[in-house]
Amino acid sequence: MSTNVLRTTDGWWAVRGERAVRVETKAVTTAELLADRDAVREAAASAGSGTPVADLVALPPVTTPCRVVAQMVNYRSHAKDSGFTGDIPATFFRKASGSVSGPHEEIVRPAHVKFLDYEVELGLVMGAPLPVGTVVEERDLPRYVAGLVLTNDVSARDVQLTKTQFYESKSYPTFTPTGPYLALLEPEDFAHLLDLRLRLSVNGVPRQDRTLADMIVRPAQALTLLARFQTLDPGDLLLTGTPGGTALKAPLKPIAKISALLPPSVRWKAFFKGQARNPRYLRDGDLVTATIATGDGRIDLGEQRTSVTGAP
Amino acid sequence: MSTNVLRTTDGWWAVRGERAVRVETKAVTTAELLADRDAVREAAASAGSGTPVADLVALPPVTTPCRVVAQMVNYRSHAKDSGFTGDIPATFFRKASGSVSGPHEEIVRPAHVKFLDYEVELGLVMGAPLPVGTVVEERDLPRYVAGLVLTNDVSARDVQLTKTQFYESKSYPTFTPTGPYLALLEPEDFAHLLDLRLRLSVNGVPRQDRTLADMIVRPAQALTLLARFQTLDPGDLLLTGTPGGTALKAPLKPIAKISALLPPSVRWKAFFKGQARNPRYLRDGDLVTATIATGDGRIDLGEQRTSVTGAP
Repeated sequence: MSTNVLRTTDGWWAVRGERAVRVETKAVTTAELLADRDAVREAAASAGSGTPVADLVALPPVTTPCRVVAQMVNYRSHAKDSGFTGDIPATFFRKASGSVSGPHEEIVRPAHVKFLDYEVELGLVMGAPLPVGTVVEERDLPRYVAGLVLTNDVSARDVQLTKTQFYESKSYPTFTPTGPYLALLEPEDFAHLLDLRLRLSVNGVPRQDRTLADMIVRPAQALTLLARFQTLDPGDLLLTGTPGGTALKAPLKPIAKISALLPPSVRWKAFFKGQARNPRYLRDGDLVTATIATGDGRIDLGEQRTSVTGAP
Repeated sequence: MSTNVLRTTDGWWAVRGERAVRVETKAVTTAELLADRDAVREAAASAGSGTPVADLVALPPVTTPCRVVAQMVNYRSHAKDSGFTGDIPATFFRKASGSVSGPHEEIVRPAHVKFLDYEVELGLVMGAPLPVGTVVEERDLPRYVAGLVLTNDVSARDVQLTKTQFYESKSYPTFTPTGPYLALLEPEDFAHLLDLRLRLSVNGVPRQDRTLADMIVRPAQALTLLARFQTLDPGDLLLTGTPGGTALKAPLKPIAKISALLPPSVRWKAFFKGQARNPRYLRDGDLVTATIATGDGRIDLGEQRTSVTGAP
């Protein structure tokens, strides 16, 4: 059974239902907390009645700086939305960890961003070093992954598509709402990962709703492919991609083929002119809610509530 | 006048011509050394005769982990090589800092990489925090940039082009040879940046040779654009792009337009079939030499000598 951990300005808390018990630890960073997991277990098992979770202001349970790596197009439904056909090469990109924000903080839209999109994603929090060359089998996953977090890979589509590299478009401050809970998993929990259901709504209207069964490259394989070229350390974060239902939809294929003949600047101008009629992009004042949980509640990463605001 | 610093397993050294004097410092990381710059000045001004530089084995003068950010297509000559026409949006991407290697280490080609390319680049080493929102004017540059390093942004073109995101293709271990010297600049040195000449040869045959005058987005503007979305800290590294002359050349425009109509897998298969006849890609055993210096030697980042080897 997983244990949910919450972070506040006062430190770390073990969550038990509607109440939370403070973890007696000197840990400041997520990596330090993961090295003091006994303290979490003690808090979770303690006799104290704890504090109502509703009274606590949750910070992101992943502390920064850390590595934030993300998988591109990793759900079949999102691949379809994005106009991909055939094989999709497993691809990683980075987000600046300065983009990590709290689960109830505002998402700040930079003034120059017109097409702001959401992407609910399961985040893996590393619990052990992953050296280059590591091969991670399904059964090894508990050795490397300490826990899970709910994340939103907020994306400025106008920046992303015109620049081709995703880095800036997904790295503005508040573009990675994370939490509320870090769910620390026990080895037996890993058998239930594919039952995790990701849901995201905007102003109460469902936009994304899929289980991990729709995922293309699953966590153990993703870590193996990542370790072909890079190291991860405890506390680092891997975002595993988003299911279908984002605001962005790829243009129909015949249109894409014709527009490929145009110079990029003309092509994007036409594309975004079309997108301006798409009402699904986030607007200032919108409320984004998201959850990730198994149907039986064995793993439940809590609820994220973030509203969108324009930069001051 | 700039001061060249060199790092070995024994610590830090101030270089004076052919000899180097040990810096009396407890600094381990580059950021710590930059905070102890007086110790470098003392070593540079000391009466000691020092050790022949030729007897020292130079490590990369930028310690890791650190942020390694890079600018895409930032020289007019490289834009032409890459088939860009019209305005190029200023674009950043990340490299894993695990790719940083020494200036005389081998470049290890992963077994699956067939099209290995070189990119000599000027690296800026940060000397002060760059908070999000900072506007860096030319005259502010000395406040943020502590020094310069010679880097090679080694690129697996077959991985880069098929995956579209540059991250993996430029992040394999040894894909960022760095050094030998960290040139610590005095404020008056910054007026000479555009005189820096980047040169790279393969087996003694010149491939790249341009000055910074060919650069599109210069350092002060690059930092301003980067600070639109992310923070940098002392010791972080910004690679500022490569001039023309890489092995990769974009296909001719009419061919590109026709091939845009093909499915990506077919298009890349055809493209790399053509590239297989291009003799400029790096092969095992090749020796890559690179230098960056002003004509008058006021700033001279030393010489990099790296040979290419296949993964064991």
